[in-house]
Order: sequence, then C-alpha cells, then structure tokens
Amino acid sequence: MKRRDFLRTGVAASAALALPQNLVAAAPGDIPASKNSTYERRQRQEPFHLGMAGYTFRHFDIDQALAFMKRLDVHYLCIKDFHLPLEASAEQIAAFKQKLAEAGVVGYGVGPIYMKSEAEVDRAFAYAKRVGVSLLVGVPNYELLDYAEKAVKQYDIRLAIHLHGPDMKVQGSDRFLYPDATDIWENIKDRDPRMGMCLDIGHNLRYGSDSLRDLKRYHTRVFDMHMKDVTGNTKADRSVELGRGVIDFSEYVRLMRKVGYVGSVSLEYEKDMKDPFFGICESVGYFRGICAATK
Amino acid sequence: MKRRDFLRTGVAASAALALPQNLVAAAPGDIPASKNSTYERRQRQEPFHLGMAGYTFRHFDIDQALAFMKRLDVHYLCIKDFHLPLEASAEQIAAFKQKLAEAGVVGYGVGPIYMKSEAEVDRAFAYAKRVGVSLLVGVPNYELLDYAEKAVKQYDIRLAIHLHGPDMKVQGSDRFLYPDATDIWENIKDRDPRMGMCLDIGHNLRYGSDSLRDLKRYHTRVFDMHMKDVTGNTKADRSVELGRGVIDFSEYVRLMRKVGYVGSVSLEYEKDMKDPFFGICESVGYFRGICAATK
Repeated sequence: MKRRDFLRTGVAASAALALPQNLVAAAPGDIPASKNSTYERRQRQEPFHLGMAGYTFRHFDIDQALAFMKRLDVHYLCIKDFHLPLEASAEQIAAFKQKLAEAGVVGYGVGPIYMKSEAEVDRAFAYAKRVGVSLLVGVPNYELLDYAEKAVKQYDIRLAIHLHGPDMKVQGSDRFLYPDATDIWENIKDRDPRMGMCLDIGHNLRYGSDSLRDLKRYHTRVFDMHMKDVTGNTKADRSVELGRGVIDFSEYVRLMRKVGYVGSVSLEYEKDMKDPFFGICESVGYFRGICAATK
Repeated sequence: MKRRDFLRTGVAASAALALPQNLVAAAPGDIPASKNSTYERRQRQEPFHLGMAGYTFRHFDIDQALAFMKRLDVHYLCIKDFHLPLEASAEQIAAFKQKLAEAGVVGYGVGPIYMKSEAEVDRAFAYAKRVGVSLLVGVPNYELLDYAEKAVKQYDIRLAIHLHGPDMKVQGSDRFLYPDATDIWENIKDRDPRMGMCLDIGHNLRYGSDSLRDLKRYHTRVFDMHMKDVTGNTKADRSVELGRGVIDFSEYVRLMRKVGYVGSVSLEYEKDMKDPFFGICESVGYFRGICAATK
C-alpha cells in the first residue's frame, strides 16, 4: 500500500483500504427490476430521460462508462469526443455504437464540442451526422453563429449551445463565453428554431442566474440539460452530489413537467472526477427520488 | 485477472476492470456542504434520522464502514455485534465509541441480537447498557417475552423487536418467527410501552403485509425502521436499490411525517452484500430525494 493511499483513506488497520468496486454487480445479487414494478412504471411514464453527460467519465474509457451505466440502470449518453474521436472512421463509429447497443445505452447526442473556426463547425456537424444523432451540444465562437446556423439548416441537426458560467472568456477579451441561459437566448432567439441551449443548471447558478426562472423563460429552446448541484451562486462554488448543494431539484423537476420538457436530463458530475462513482450513484438516486415524489 | 472476474465485468478490453473505489474521497474534490445550504437546512429540519443498519456492512470492518459513511454524510449507525462483540470489554467499547465519534457517527442502538435463552436476554441488555444506548433491536424467542419485559424495566432500555418476513421459523415448528408488524404488535401491545418494533418495510412486504397500513396502526410502538426496497410481496422477492422495487417511498415518508415519527430510518441493504457501495449510495440518494420533495 502506498503511503498516499493510506493517507487518503485514513483507515489504519484495514485489510482492504481501497475496495475493489466492480462496475458490474456480482451475478447472484444482480436482480433486474421486475416488470410492472413501480420502478418500471415510473420510468416509462416520465416525459424526459435521465442520462449521463460523457464528460462525467473523463478519466474512464467507454467500456468502463457503459459497464457502470448498465449497473446503474441509466440508458442515455451524450457522447464525448474522448470516447469517440471527431475523426472516427465509419468502422470505429459502427463498433462504438455496437458497444452502446450491447449495454442498452442510447447515444442521444454528441458534445460538448468547441468550434473556433468554420472548419471546426463543419467538422462537428459532419461528425454528428456520421454518428447518426440529431442533437449536437456545442460551443461555436460568437462570430461563427451565422455559419453554425447554416450548418444547422444544411444538416437538420439541432444545436444546443452549452453555457459554462463564470469560467471561460472569449479569447482576447474580458467577455464571458456563453456564461448563462440568457446570453445564449439573446444570441439565438431570432435564429432557426433548431438553435437552442444545453441548460447547465449548476454553471448557470454559479453565474448568479436562476435556472427556474430561465427554464420558464426559455424552455422552447432548451434541447438538453446538464444536471449538477453546486455549493452556491458564485464562481468559487463547486459541484457536489445532487441534494448536497443549494439547488431545489423538487421545484425544478416540477417545472420541467409543467413546461413539458421532453429531452434528456444528463448528470454532469464534476466532483472527485477520478473517483466519481459513489457520487454519481448518490446523485442518480437523488434525482430518481425527486422524480418519484413529484409526480 | 481471474476468469470469474472477467466474466462478471463483461468488459473485454479495459485496463482496470475492477476500479478501486476509495471509501474516502480524494482530498481536493472533497467539499463539505456549505453551512446554511438547502442541504444543511433540510437535514436539520427532518424529525427523523437517516441511518445505517450495521448488518449492511456484514462483509466490512468498522473502519471501512465508518470511512464510507463519512463520505456519504450519514451519521447514525445501529451497531451490529460483528463490529462490536457482545463480550466486548469496557476498553474495547471505549475504543469503538472513539472511532464513531471521530467519524461523526452516533451509535443510536445495538442489534439485531437474537435471544434464545434467559442468559442471552441478560447478555444482550447488559451489552446495550455497557455500550450506553437506550435502544436494543432484538429477537427474543416468544417464550422469553415475559423475561425480556422484565429486562426492559430493569434496564430502562427500549426493545425494538425485528421482523423478518417469511424467512425464519420458530425452532421445531412451522410457525414463522416475528414475520410481520402485526405479529409483533399482537405480542407486545399489552406490555410495557418500551417494548415495540423495528419495522423492516421490505421483509414486512415480503410476508404480504403493507407497511403503510402498519405504520398507521402501530406507529406508537415503532422505535426503529429498516429501510429497503424489494421486488415484490412474496418470499421469493428480494432486496434491490431504493426506487427499483415496488415500495412507494413518497407515500411512506409522507406518512412518517404525519404520524410524527422521530426515530431512525436505517438502510439495511441486502443486495450485492460483498460489493454494496454503489447500491447504498443510490439508495441513500433516493431517500434524500424523496425527503426533499415531500416536505
């Protein structure tokens, strides 16, 4: 045992400090939820889908991510390019999609993909088309919005612009790059209706913006959501397990139902990213509990 | 890698099939919930406490259990004798309690403890007293109930009789041993008011008994709860993650509030017991989501 591991666990006399957590359950205890159970009924009745943002698995390969999702019974994934490169060949894409199918996972979109030139816009949309999705979560530079709109029309692929709170600045400027939902709305409201946003409710709040208010205002252009909880409404605040932060998920899910949201709600879990599985499980459980109690 | 492990994970080309899951988070990402957060307020406002039944950690030592509970932010434990033996000395008990204190965990009771003779009743109550708890979750043979009642009075320790559904039979008989809440109620209702039950809502349902009905009927004598979800209402049905089975936790938690339940609600997680942490996290998250959305 390395000294560092010892310090991290803080458990002195234990035989197995870092317990192996099999991403797939041991066979004997692995009981699928029975058909027609409360759980199955609830899942079928929800108008929206619980998913995972691929970014959550930044430090894990796609096999690990899928094995874990299968165990957690989550079936929607937004595909991130570190799992399926933008230059992937038709064969690589086919093999990747086969893996998803075997795990019972739907790749409902790709991204987030940053686009800093027309060539990068072209590459992103061509990639989405080759992967066969109709949703691209992306971040085109502001000056590329006209060009991106043309691509949206040409490919008939919806663009959900991702907001990042008070974290990223426009190159060579003090202006934030799509900091919140209002900024995206102002930039796309008069454009093709296939241009919208991926509402990241945690980053939105870290910029001081209320996602309840913003979902009410902008829901016609909310194509995807990144779900996270955060410790507060400033840049210094950070991601935590759902329910441990300040976001009121009960009210948020009630509003999702009220406005008729039918897209994915994808957990983007950014705490302990090298050791995220406990927190993901807790967060997914929390969201399911909220959904069950707000119907 | 053993062939069996390979088959269990079902992931062919992965470098780290069984990922180490540190029971305590890596320091940099480990952010405590901020004071006065929604989470903190909710925790303080709940009349009942989320806890863990020690049995959940059957295959893990107390250091592992506490490290995990600390990470999961759960602070109540019903102490099981494989973690603190019935014969523990004063020194062993003091050392054990020191560990709990360091992890911010309250040992709110002991058990379940089976009692098959007067000597075992004596031993169990003396143990509870030495540990310093006022709640003993126990299973005295039916013929020992008079004797157990005397011990309850002598020690002023509440006895919460644990029910086990259609699993255990009275020795040499076809009769089940405390199969459900009604059976316990019938046996204790005319006895000292410190005699009651640990309502295991999963086992109760596996015997065909409705825990909503039973909490309504018997709440004056419900001193502890074992929380689990199950796949259905027969002996063949089994434990699953909260929310994946048939129990309606929204209604159950609403009823807990309505009847003014102020004890512990302890997760007794019996699926994948050698690899339970993902399921525990999901279940704890689920319960917290239910609590948040039913206030």
